[in-house]
Amino acid sequence: MGHFRLVLEYDGSGFEGWQVQPGEHRTVQGELIAALERISKGRVRVTGAGRTDTGVHAEGQVAGVRADTRLTPQELQRALNGLLPSDLAVLAAEAVSDTFDARRGAVSKLYRYRIWNGPSRSPLRASRALHVPQPLDLDAMRRAAAVLEGLHDFASFQAAGSTVECTERLLGRCELLGEPGGELVLECEGSGFLRHMVRNIAGTLLEVGLGRRTAESMGALLEARSRDLAGPTAAAHALTLVRVDYPVERIDSVEPIDSA
Amino acid sequence: MGHFRLVLEYDGSGFEGWQVQPGEHRTVQGELIAALERISKGRVRVTGAGRTDTGVHAEGQVAGVRADTRLTPQELQRALNGLLPSDLAVLAAEAVSDTFDARRGAVSKLYRYRIWNGPSRSPLRASRALHVPQPLDLDAMRRAAAVLEGLHDFASFQAAGSTVECTERLLGRCELLGEPGGELVLECEGSGFLRHMVRNIAGTLLEVGLGRRTAESMGALLEARSRDLAGPTAAAHALTLVRVDYPVERIDSVEPIDSA
Repeated sequence: MGHFRLVLEYDGSGFEGWQVQPGEHRTVQGELIAALERISKGRVRVTGAGRTDTGVHAEGQVAGVRADTRLTPQELQRALNGLLPSDLAVLAAEAVSDTFDARRGAVSKLYRYRIWNGPSRSPLRASRALHVPQPLDLDAMRRAAAVLEGLHDFASFQAAGSTVECTERLLGRCELLGEPGGELVLECEGSGFLRHMVRNIAGTLLEVGLGRRTAESMGALLEARSRDLAGPTAAAHALTLVRVDYPVERIDSVEPIDSA
Repeated sequence: MGHFRLVLEYDGSGFEGWQVQPGEHRTVQGELIAALERISKGRVRVTGAGRTDTGVHAEGQVAGVRADTRLTPQELQRALNGLLPSDLAVLAAEAVSDTFDARRGAVSKLYRYRIWNGPSRSPLRASRALHVPQPLDLDAMRRAAAVLEGLHDFASFQAAGSTVECTERLLGRCELLGEPGGELVLECEGSGFLRHMVRNIAGTLLEVGLGRRTAESMGALLEARSRDLAGPTAAAHALTLVRVDYPVERIDSVEPIDSA
């Protein structure tokens, strides 16, 4: 039984998200399992670092894969890239120890939310960015984003109906890059994210940018712990999971060079 | 009768090129005419700066448009963006004099040809870039590109079967940007281009990069004036028409402030 860490890129447009679902749903995990089952002699198991929603893209999703194969990681990567559909690819593969857990082992994730702030629709950006033609107060958006940085209870920013018990998360960085009228990128990097958290942050920051709420109101919004008070969930197609980081694997025992 | 200059962006994936054709073909010019006919009282005329081929994208195609409308350029732009399909948009519109000719009046065009040189397929780049996973000798490609810059007879780089009489063109700039293993962009800027010229240059430079021909052979290739001797026509989906430039319109008469 081989255990591998795969780094995946996918165009989320054609997938109903990451996770396999009952019925006729095309998912990233499902396509990956189907390809692995053509390679592995026995059953396969695939765990994703994060469950991206329908339409969300990835440049660096990570999957832990167990498969009954003698292929080296590089051979597995090439075989999978030959079998997978054109909107899903394996960027890297390596062997990992039995204890590797793609979901619980991740220490940090980076998401990018793209906003096209030009006056006209942009057909070449349409599948990757949300078009907001109105003038945006980027200074206010940046002040609001800064309030969210740090260890906070993000209950106000989780998906409606979520039942997670602990909603405290460390948002190490929440930064809006770009210039008014151009391509804006909201980068959110943190130890973990609640469902829809980045899209709800994006929707709320856009309301700040449009003058519908103030940057100064963000503290009270966090304290309120109420999804009803935050902005709308911004569209999924503008979100990309860019990177998932893991601790460097510990070397458990080093043979002493000289035991004398 | 209004005469307008429109700047257009389109995702070429869904179009069989720019030019209207007989039969059931979805073209950029065809979509633009259909939208204009819903606005104009009489017949419309649409001329493109260049006839992009099937699959070729544009960030700055220019069209000259004659339509029977009293809309201002800005109103026309907004109306068209409301009527046009999502893969085609008007980025700018202005009124032009009766003599404006989008095709013959253009003094310079900029094309970009994108190459993804990473080892694995990139689903998020797939619709805009050609994947070449092999190592490329960028230095040799750059030396070859430099040979093509200037005023030359580009008969070796025109589409097979072309019957243009004059095949001399000024290629002001032919520059390969980027680093090995990453995203490479071939920029070609010039006063005019033969059919398939940029794609044939890209295909030929890739052969240089792969060591199949030398940078030093480019001079002889130009002199041979034979399409058979150049490299293959590189795929259309990686080509984008970025910009078309026109001379600043002359002010024909300036009223003297004081005729005394």
